[in-house]
Amino acid sequence: MQISEKKINFANYFDFMDNDLKYRRLRVQKLLSEAGADACIITTNVNIYYLTGKVFTGFIFLPAEGEMLCFVQRPVVIEDEFTIQIRKPEEIPAILENREIALPKTLYLESGQITHLEFLRLEAAFHPQKTGDATSVLRTARMIKSPWEIEQFRISAVCHSKAYSEIAPLFREGMTDIEFQIEIERVMRRNGSIGIFRAFGGNMDIFMGSVLTGKNAETPSPFDFALGGAGLNPTVPIGACGEKIEIGNSVMVDMAGNFTAYMTDMTRVFARGKLPEIAYKAHNLSIAMHNRLMSEAKVGTSCADIYKFSLEMAENEGLVEYFMGTRQQAKFVGHGVGLEINEPPVLTPRSKEILEPNMVFAFEPKFVIPGVGAVGNENTYLVSNNGLEKITKFDEEIISI
Amino acid sequence: MQISEKKINFANYFDFMDNDLKYRRLRVQKLLSEAGADACIITTNVNIYYLTGKVFTGFIFLPAEGEMLCFVQRPVVIEDEFTIQIRKPEEIPAILENREIALPKTLYLESGQITHLEFLRLEAAFHPQKTGDATSVLRTARMIKSPWEIEQFRISAVCHSKAYSEIAPLFREGMTDIEFQIEIERVMRRNGSIGIFRAFGGNMDIFMGSVLTGKNAETPSPFDFALGGAGLNPTVPIGACGEKIEIGNSVMVDMAGNFTAYMTDMTRVFARGKLPEIAYKAHNLSIAMHNRLMSEAKVGTSCADIYKFSLEMAENEGLVEYFMGTRQQAKFVGHGVGLEINEPPVLTPRSKEILEPNMVFAFEPKFVIPGVGAVGNENTYLVSNNGLEKITKFDEEIISI
Repeated sequence: MQISEKKINFANYFDFMDNDLKYRRLRVQKLLSEAGADACIITTNVNIYYLTGKVFTGFIFLPAEGEMLCFVQRPVVIEDEFTIQIRKPEEIPAILENREIALPKTLYLESGQITHLEFLRLEAAFHPQKTGDATSVLRTARMIKSPWEIEQFRISAVCHSKAYSEIAPLFREGMTDIEFQIEIERVMRRNGSIGIFRAFGGNMDIFMGSVLTGKNAETPSPFDFALGGAGLNPTVPIGACGEKIEIGNSVMVDMAGNFTAYMTDMTRVFARGKLPEIAYKAHNLSIAMHNRLMSEAKVGTSCADIYKFSLEMAENEGLVEYFMGTRQQAKFVGHGVGLEINEPPVLTPRSKEILEPNMVFAFEPKFVIPGVGAVGNENTYLVSNNGLEKITKFDEEIISI
Repeated sequence: MQISEKKINFANYFDFMDNDLKYRRLRVQKLLSEAGADACIITTNVNIYYLTGKVFTGFIFLPAEGEMLCFVQRPVVIEDEFTIQIRKPEEIPAILENREIALPKTLYLESGQITHLEFLRLEAAFHPQKTGDATSVLRTARMIKSPWEIEQFRISAVCHSKAYSEIAPLFREGMTDIEFQIEIERVMRRNGSIGIFRAFGGNMDIFMGSVLTGKNAETPSPFDFALGGAGLNPTVPIGACGEKIEIGNSVMVDMAGNFTAYMTDMTRVFARGKLPEIAYKAHNLSIAMHNRLMSEAKVGTSCADIYKFSLEMAENEGLVEYFMGTRQQAKFVGHGVGLEINEPPVLTPRSKEILEPNMVFAFEPKFVIPGVGAVGNENTYLVSNNGLEKITKFDEEIISI
């Protein structure tokens, strides 16, 4: 399982990568065709990386049929048939015409990611008859992971578990949540975390992940993450706030596993001394939810049903008032992961999505116990034809510190 | 000078903060009036923080004249006359009408920050006769800092210097750039860094800052930062890449000073053993550029002239081929800083901006010496009526490690 320990044959590896990029490109082209688009222009880091395996400042021209062209502003590149250095996007239409490539009548742009001004500029440069939304096309394509992408998750998961195994010994008597988090961040980085936490949506500001303890776990957040916390400064109101970790507190550690471009999401709970019984009951219920997910969910399972059985189980155990928060309760129990931490599908009561092969998603049924902290695990799962595979493997019990 | 060591009278402090928010709001309202806007809708974290001192998910309605209203989606808030909980932006127009507030005919939206789809949604909800760009209004307002904001920079600068004073002892024989950077990150965090690195523009992905050594300093970057570096992974191609720090290498440390919401920018150079003479010559030239800036620049100085004298000095010393990079050279020597690391003004050859009182900007004349690394300092300056004040104070010579 430990891909990172396999010996890689690099000649084969680059073939693999190359085929994989072709597969991803073809997926996007198929979706473009189905949507009636002639072409799309891609200019966001995340989608450029998806289509090329690298990041540059510039524009990808991807027609529904035909060759993909990369128009690069920065860095300076060696030009080839498919890579052209430009200064500004307005140069692209003339270059296409010189190559006898028809300008797209229906052009898809990343309307859900690029700014309104960027959209207007591209629209003016290409003056298509019609525009459409490439953001949803790319998010749909990216929802089903390719073989190379799945391998990247496995590498992230192994590093993620390794880093988490180093957490407990970091705790020192008298530490605050943020002091503990800083040591955890260091261990994540030393295990290869690239640091950057990519999320879809402009306002999801968070730094590496979240460490919550005590009453701070109840603090509602302005963000669409599962839990809140006051944060260190009103400018980033999420996560650790300088609260001392006391005996009888849980410490929930939810750091993004960004050891490759593909993030695993994993939460584990640590505790000082003995917690109240209700905390163990809630934590065990979270484990039971994961077990039920593993045994029941498969290709075809409705994402809304996963939310529903989780809520039902919380209700049956009388723990619903603590489920996914107290003062503010998140209305989801999981989400797709990938190049961004919040990809489709979403596990909400009204989700229309079903599990499909090669989706990768995080399931995070959590409880906030007032005065104690948060409990419950989060794991990342791969949907395969044989059911779910849990890829984030690490002790699931509450770990003493 | 060390604000963080002053005893704060909190009653006065909140008055101060309150007056300051009023001042910032009035600045924006004045610019809206001048632009002919009836109102703007603000929904990005950075501008919400600027206008309220907090972050929420929702919308600020700020008319060119009259009271500001906050429409909050998350977190759950206590409503008052000026704070209203909503589920979606489409509710806002009816609430305004109920309060007998005229719907804006000319509505400014953050076109340079919100996505095209967000723009369309707000436009459909308010159906104004005309729209305009609130992004440039807010960036113009934010360019001139208020008294409270200037105090925040001073607090950041003190912590920044303190953290930098702890860097040299962190070096251990055999370390790579990333190993050294991880220890620097920890020290930044322990001194209060909030971690998040806010930049204007969707594609400016970077983690906390950059540590460059040896030949990696020459690697061109896709990003609009002063220097490059290959990074750890093609998905974030900037900064440290795992290169060993060898004798005869410089190590340029350029970490964002985000100890408050207002970032100071400061670069210092460390070195192992003796560097080639040209490295010291270039570093001393950078110091001379800073000295010239301090002695010549004042209210009214053209930002383009600062670029021009820097380039001239590099030419006169025969160092222009190393100035701001080698294979790819940045065409700026500085930039405004604030809630984002790249605010106006910009110090470019064609900048039309002039220095105005209470601007805060970073000046970073740097050189890349092939095989050695990068040299040159960066400091953050406040423009006052008495000239420039350097707020990032720390040893400027190359520091041995």
